[in-house]
Amino acid sequence: MKMSKMFVQTLREFPADAEVISHKLLVRAGFIKKLSSGIYNYLPLMWRVLKKIENIIREEMDAAGAQELSMPFVQPQELWEESGRWEIYGKELMRMKDRHDRGMCLGPTHEEIITAIARDGLKSYKQLPVNLYQIQLKFRDEIRPRFGLLRGREFIMKDAYSFHAKQECLDKEYENMAQAYTKIFDRCGLATKVVQSDSGAIGGNVSHEYMVVIDTDAGENDVFFCEKCDYAANSERATSKLAEAQTDGAQVSSFSKAEIIDTPNTKSIEELSEFLKVPSAVILKTLVYIADKKSVLVLIRGDKAVEETKLKNALNVKELRIAVAAEIEELMVQKGFNADKGFIGPVGMQGVWMVADESVKDLKNFVVGCNQKDKHLVGANFGGNLTVGVKEFDKFVDVRLVEKGEFCPQCGEPLNVCQGIEVGNIFQLGTKYSKPMKAVFTDVDGKEKPYIMGCYGIGVTRTAQAAVEKFHDENGIIWPTSIAPYHVIIVPVNIQDELQMKTATEIYEKLIAQGIEAVLDDRDDRLGSKLKDADLIGFPYKIIIGKDSKVLEIKNRKTNETIYKKTELVVQYIKEQLNSQL
Amino acid sequence: MKMSKMFVQTLREFPADAEVISHKLLVRAGFIKKLSSGIYNYLPLMWRVLKKIENIIREEMDAAGAQELSMPFVQPQELWEESGRWEIYGKELMRMKDRHDRGMCLGPTHEEIITAIARDGLKSYKQLPVNLYQIQLKFRDEIRPRFGLLRGREFIMKDAYSFHAKQECLDKEYENMAQAYTKIFDRCGLATKVVQSDSGAIGGNVSHEYMVVIDTDAGENDVFFCEKCDYAANSERATSKLAEAQTDGAQVSSFSKAEIIDTPNTKSIEELSEFLKVPSAVILKTLVYIADKKSVLVLIRGDKAVEETKLKNALNVKELRIAVAAEIEELMVQKGFNADKGFIGPVGMQGVWMVADESVKDLKNFVVGCNQKDKHLVGANFGGNLTVGVKEFDKFVDVRLVEKGEFCPQCGEPLNVCQGIEVGNIFQLGTKYSKPMKAVFTDVDGKEKPYIMGCYGIGVTRTAQAAVEKFHDENGIIWPTSIAPYHVIIVPVNIQDELQMKTATEIYEKLIAQGIEAVLDDRDDRLGSKLKDADLIGFPYKIIIGKDSKVLEIKNRKTNETIYKKTELVVQYIKEQLNSQL
Repeated sequence: MKMSKMFVQTLREFPADAEVISHKLLVRAGFIKKLSSGIYNYLPLMWRVLKKIENIIREEMDAAGAQELSMPFVQPQELWEESGRWEIYGKELMRMKDRHDRGMCLGPTHEEIITAIARDGLKSYKQLPVNLYQIQLKFRDEIRPRFGLLRGREFIMKDAYSFHAKQECLDKEYENMAQAYTKIFDRCGLATKVVQSDSGAIGGNVSHEYMVVIDTDAGENDVFFCEKCDYAANSERATSKLAEAQTDGAQVSSFSKAEIIDTPNTKSIEELSEFLKVPSAVILKTLVYIADKKSVLVLIRGDKAVEETKLKNALNVKELRIAVAAEIEELMVQKGFNADKGFIGPVGMQGVWMVADESVKDLKNFVVGCNQKDKHLVGANFGGNLTVGVKEFDKFVDVRLVEKGEFCPQCGEPLNVCQGIEVGNIFQLGTKYSKPMKAVFTDVDGKEKPYIMGCYGIGVTRTAQAAVEKFHDENGIIWPTSIAPYHVIIVPVNIQDELQMKTATEIYEKLIAQGIEAVLDDRDDRLGSKLKDADLIGFPYKIIIGKDSKVLEIKNRKTNETIYKKTELVVQYIKEQLNSQL
Repeated sequence: MKMSKMFVQTLREFPADAEVISHKLLVRAGFIKKLSSGIYNYLPLMWRVLKKIENIIREEMDAAGAQELSMPFVQPQELWEESGRWEIYGKELMRMKDRHDRGMCLGPTHEEIITAIARDGLKSYKQLPVNLYQIQLKFRDEIRPRFGLLRGREFIMKDAYSFHAKQECLDKEYENMAQAYTKIFDRCGLATKVVQSDSGAIGGNVSHEYMVVIDTDAGENDVFFCEKCDYAANSERATSKLAEAQTDGAQVSSFSKAEIIDTPNTKSIEELSEFLKVPSAVILKTLVYIADKKSVLVLIRGDKAVEETKLKNALNVKELRIAVAAEIEELMVQKGFNADKGFIGPVGMQGVWMVADESVKDLKNFVVGCNQKDKHLVGANFGGNLTVGVKEFDKFVDVRLVEKGEFCPQCGEPLNVCQGIEVGNIFQLGTKYSKPMKAVFTDVDGKEKPYIMGCYGIGVTRTAQAAVEKFHDENGIIWPTSIAPYHVIIVPVNIQDELQMKTATEIYEKLIAQGIEAVLDDRDDRLGSKLKDADLIGFPYKIIIGKDSKVLEIKNRKTNETIYKKTELVVQYIKEQLNSQL
């Protein structure tokens, strides 16, 4: 491709509406162009990157025994009603009516469709297992699309679905996919961390995410990981041992006697801790949430925070949010108390849904709100002066946001934290879709059973942007060679110079003849400006052709090294370099 | 791929809702599966076919200098308002609102998007010409989807758009694309007829369609073509010389004197012709249409029919339909007449929009309705006793549906007719989009001008089905080798026989090692049933392995030939066969 013919325009400035560096770079270097909020055109350079990622995925999925098909983007309401998701999927599901007034939606994911395909085709255990995948558009009507392709509305995804007669068979395929995923991301030049994750709207129990660890703050959530063992989980799923439990020490306050004392104007844990001169870790914090329209009191240690996804899962509810002041007040009135927000607690509380995080389990003689204005109970203990009387309280739950320095739940070493961009995920769906959709096969015992299913996603557009977030410098993108839009750019210093252009053209044609993806920068522009564009776009190699046509300068974008090669050895050198990287 | 693992299920019966053979075969052979009206899953076999067609298109488009990108499927209302098509595009445009109540639609075509991309990137004549293409989903909410993928709602299309500073440059690229298209369809094994066509909703003046000529009746419209010269046009565009004009003879009736005579109960041309004992060719037929809500009288020779697309174009209106009885009655009352449908005509008609097809030009002494009940004027002549007084009537228009046997407008030979499936089209758009969307470049003279544009489509899913409509027999599909899902199937007669399976597996592995796409039918089934499936699916070659492991039977699906080859020569033979076809 000649640069003068290439449909690309690099911008002088970063776009005003981009927040993260990868988004800024992709726009400025002419890879993507916004059409509408969260909807992007993939310009020719980007499309080459995406095709390369797709091809790597396709090769590895095929090698792993999966079969490619393609399912529609526009889907009928009926199928989504069968799975029950038409009801529960929120506004992210883009719904519409066709000209005959039939309900349709744009696929945010394809479990319903693939399950409907399978139930017509897979009637016997003999046909199982099967793993089917596609590389397709998806649409999710995000409330606040951001970060370019990282949280877009329309995006490209590889989604695979496997069908099994037995759980052990799913376990095996899950492992098979896990290995394929590691290969895929490795080939894309992206080392990934495999972390335990929450299954979210997709459903199922076991799930893992593939995260590209980044140094910038474009990650969507924190990943907690153990430096010693293989434990890693995103914050929505992470768990830990607390320091105290670790050392078998209970968290004991200095209040040895239970009594209600005045604590005027102590509306926050900080104020209370300061007023009483006790650490916040001996205070039991009580938060009020509204879960599926019901109030729920959540007890947690004063120095810890609630992780709402974990809480939502623990409560097994569809909607969850913190209560507003008026709702708390109403609850107090109902229960016959008159305390404000800072003074509520489990003391004397009857007939209210209440859960306690494990962090409060080892508290002794602690401080807790007693539902009286400007007063707290100190020296409190479970089983003693706390009246709870609700079943949920008996079993402690884990709803705590893990913090760096807490201890690995597997091996007890301190946990570390990093930011990650999720590029893939694998789920064990079990019978979540096959059961309601009556997608059954006849098993070896002659009985009809729902398939046991797994699903496996890779964000194709996301992977491309994650690579940019991971690999860039102040001059632009540094594409991993395997997914770079082109391998080499040839830059003659002066295109008016016949000899330079002749040498450049010869090198260009020889590279192309060798199957190397080369670009010839034949624009009549200053060298500096051409090199700037080359660095911004991120060609792995630049060949610069100046007055000396016998020896050429080769620059490596990644290492920033410059070497000089005899002209006749340049093609061979580039070829060897690429072979070692592809 | 082993047949036992392949996700495919052939059906015993044709689907009840399929009308044309290609649709029936694709469903029955397990290539596609309906999700909703006009929306299909492309199962693994079909996806392989579609990928092959896509690759052929991609290679030829790239070779022709076009650059691939990818534009969104979900598009914002604003852009469609800029071009004016939000208003005029009918219900085929699938519209919806996003969660923030912004109007969106699903792309039925991408002129708006590409024009918006171009106007930001192509500022100077120096950057032109550019040809950009994508291979993408499209959605058109057809009122009556039918014929499987031939008239579906969601489908895959290659659409290319070129941008030029000058008309001559567009002409050149139009020819370049025409050549690329011929190559593409040839490589897909499909000879195409290039026909002049109507530009329809896309707009523009010059346009051609690429038609696969078929023997069945799955075509959407007739193609008229000359056996002698290169003239070919679809019925919406075709024109001809009439026999009489050809021989320079006017169409003269035996009524030499103009008079109004009684013609009771002659409501149709047939009845009138019989009653008066004159050929229908000397009767002038008057039809009433409603065009953009206005009445229009269309005069045409009694033995000819109106082609409504041609009429719509000639009138330059957006909506056109034949008037209903009440509307005709209302018109008559307005104009002070009391004639019924069979007796209306231009005689004495004032202040009405009226056009005359060229077929009436040479009529002399003809018969025509005179707006009196049960009466006609005979011996009528233009310029004589016909009062018309409307400007449109002065210029004759060509709105006639051409018939086989009429004469080629280019060379005068009789026209022939065939049925065709449109698989591609090319359009000269001119400034239809660039002008309203203010998509301009600075020309060499320093002035801002709108791009002159062309657009070029190929129906990918349509091409696949057209191949099946063209190539099949009573046993199933006969894929052209270049787009067949696999090249060869190896069928051991008895999979329990160790030697047969060993030979089969060896051949299978050798073929794969040679890059040949082979399937091993390892199912424990009767030979007849396996061969039936192989024929239905349409593998170009079958290798049958029976008791004699030294000599194998090879069947060619297309020619139905059977040959026998020594086992060690089979792979080489297949390789040579394929090389000559790919």
